[in-house]
Order: sequence, then structure tokens, then C-alpha cells
Amino acid sequence: MSDRTRLTRKPERRTDDPAVLHRLLDEARIAHVGCVRDGSPVVLPMAMGRDEDRLLLHGSTGAGMFLAARSGIEVSVAVTHLDGLVFARSAFDHSMNYRSAVLFGVATPVAPGEKEHALKVVTEHLIPGRWDEVRSPTPKELAATTVLEVPLAEVSVKVRAAGPGDEPGDGEDHSVWAGVVPLRTVADDPIPSPITGSSTALPRSVRALL
Amino acid sequence: MSDRTRLTRKPERRTDDPAVLHRLLDEARIAHVGCVRDGSPVVLPMAMGRDEDRLLLHGSTGAGMFLAARSGIEVSVAVTHLDGLVFARSAFDHSMNYRSAVLFGVATPVAPGEKEHALKVVTEHLIPGRWDEVRSPTPKELAATTVLEVPLAEVSVKVRAAGPGDEPGDGEDHSVWAGVVPLRTVADDPIPSPITGSSTALPRSVRALL
Repeated sequence: MSDRTRLTRKPERRTDDPAVLHRLLDEARIAHVGCVRDGSPVVLPMAMGRDEDRLLLHGSTGAGMFLAARSGIEVSVAVTHLDGLVFARSAFDHSMNYRSAVLFGVATPVAPGEKEHALKVVTEHLIPGRWDEVRSPTPKELAATTVLEVPLAEVSVKVRAAGPGDEPGDGEDHSVWAGVVPLRTVADDPIPSPITGSSTALPRSVRALL
Repeated sequence: MSDRTRLTRKPERRTDDPAVLHRLLDEARIAHVGCVRDGSPVVLPMAMGRDEDRLLLHGSTGAGMFLAARSGIEVSVAVTHLDGLVFARSAFDHSMNYRSAVLFGVATPVAPGEKEHALKVVTEHLIPGRWDEVRSPTPKELAATTVLEVPLAEVSVKVRAAGPGDEPGDGEDHSVWAGVVPLRTVADDPIPSPITGSSTALPRSVRALL
């Protein structure tokens, strides 16, 4: 049983531990980014990476949020892992184990001179080891790339990593099964593209995911 | 090879097919909900369920967004599945396969008389079959429950389900492996709570997740 799945009495907590935040971000591939457009909220999923103390967001340069960010745009970014389903004896007491970070800040495009570095960080974040297996971006490709950065300054981290809050004398029917079903993301068999030769070996970056 | 993983030439598309939207929502457990608070965006993860043509959101009654929603609050809700990582021959052409719904609307609390129904829908959405295995909510528990609803009226659905956009004559180095690594969420071995008897059989709802 790992630390994450050990059942404790303290089900939910905020933490200021940067190691928890960094691990949570480093294990995530998608961030949900909210901004205000014409007074209304908009939330979009984006590819992400972490570069030290800033979060990098990668999306289509044509997307409205990326255009609006040219001069800086206020965002809230949520990154969430659903780590398990919590089964209790009553419907009401069911819960989820999760790790979540909610970041507030101003998103700005990374400087042109930093774009290649930022693209490398995001690529390596999503697929460790891939950068050196493939062709580097051309100047034209970099010009078509926008990566936004948000400083990891104002961030709220919450973790629930516990079983149901049951006690022997809580009046519930303890013949009903209660506990946690952990959830995890796994990779299935790789599917080569039609023009990948059948004798082409899986690269190290793919094998590391399996 | 399933429809989802078949490699096609049309990598990205918007769809108005309600069946795609419904399946995407029905397979999701977490929604990312954005609202505007004091002029700034806030995005929070919430448990979710779908009840016909409305999305139900479940969270702590103490959370600011739930308090603000008492008289209706404008939200944007994103629900995203990351279905695979797309490996190309160049860093720039890497991508992700995903299904995403972005909903816009006004969130309001479900009526008091509908709360038990809404809690059942969310519970059954997250853990099919669980409602009938456990104790129903008491009036006090229902009073402490807030479920928000957002009509599935204004929603944008995007699906990318394709391989990398490679062509024999695209100038790339085709000795580099390209293709898709599908991703999937799985359940690990259930962890019983300390007071679940060791002879208590796993209920049907848990077994269905394994």
C-alpha cells in the first residue's frame, strides 16, 4: 500500500508543500484554463508543462485565449488527478480521492527567444525523452507556436487521500463494503502510423509509457 | 482496433452529434467549472453526472461557487478525455487525441424536492449500481447537499481521434517511429476500510469497475 492509498482519519487537506504541487503538475498532461471573455467565463483544456516555477500552456495560436494573451490575460488554471473512488455505507458519504491545484495569475506568451526551450519543456513533460528522438522545430514552426506562461505564485493545492470516514459506532450498516477503488491512467498497445515501417522498433520514449 | 483509435486523415473536428456529447459526459467523473468572481476567473474541479439534457455538478455546500449559485451563476464547464498521445517525426507535429465538451450556461441549484433524485443520478453516474447497495440520504443529509444544474444547451464538442498527419512525401525522416499511444483509466485492487470485515464480498458496483 502506497502513501497515497493509505487510509487515514484526515481525509482532506490543503498543503503548501511545493513538492506536492510539483509532483502533481509533473504527472499531469492536461490543464483546464479559465479566463473572462466579454464578462463571461470560458474554460478550455490545454496541453501543459512545468518549467521550474512557471506553468507552460500550449495550444493553437488561433485560439481566442492565445490571441487575447498577447498583452497578458488573467487566468485560473486547474490541474486535477482523480486518484480513487471512495465507497461509504451511505450514499451521502461517498467521495473521491484527488489531488488538485488551482492557480491564479496572468498568462503571457513566452518570449520569442524562449519558444524553442518552452516547446522542449512541454514536449519532454508530456513524453519524456521524445525531444531527442525527433526533428527540432524550424523557425517557421516556432513562429506558428504560442506557449503561454503563468508563474506558480498564487496556487491552492488540495489533497484527499483517505478512506471513507467510518467509525465502529457511527450507526451505519458495516456489513456493507466500504473502502477505496484506486484509479490510474495506463497506456495501451501503441498503434503505428500507416507509414511507420513494420520493422521500426518502438523508441525508448514509447516503451517508457508501457 | 476500435473506432476511437483508427487512424484517419481528418484529425480534428467539431461535432454536433448529441450521442458523442452524451457518451463523453457519461464516461467522465470530473468537470472543470469556471465562473467569474470579482471580475476574475476561477476554475474548480467538481464531481458530475448527466441527467438527460442537463449536467449536474456536486461539491461542498460551503464552496464559494455553490453559495454564489443560489441565484444562478454564469459558468463555463469543460469535460475532457485524453484518449492518446500522438507521436510524429517532428517535435512540432506531436499532438493529443482527446474528446472535449465545453459548456456555457447558468448554473442553478436543483430544487429541494429534486435533490434526492439529483444525488442518485450523480452517485449512479460515478459508480453505477451503488445507490441500491447503500443507505439512502436522510433529510438532514439532503439539506447539507447542493447539486447544481446546467442545461446542455450551448455546448461545443471537439474530437481528435487520428494518427500523426504524416505523408510519404512530407520530407520527414520516416525511420522515426510515429503513431499513437492510447491512454485509458483503470481501477486497481480495491482497498477495504479498516472496519470492513475481511469476509465481506466485493459488491457488484466495485466488481464492475475492475
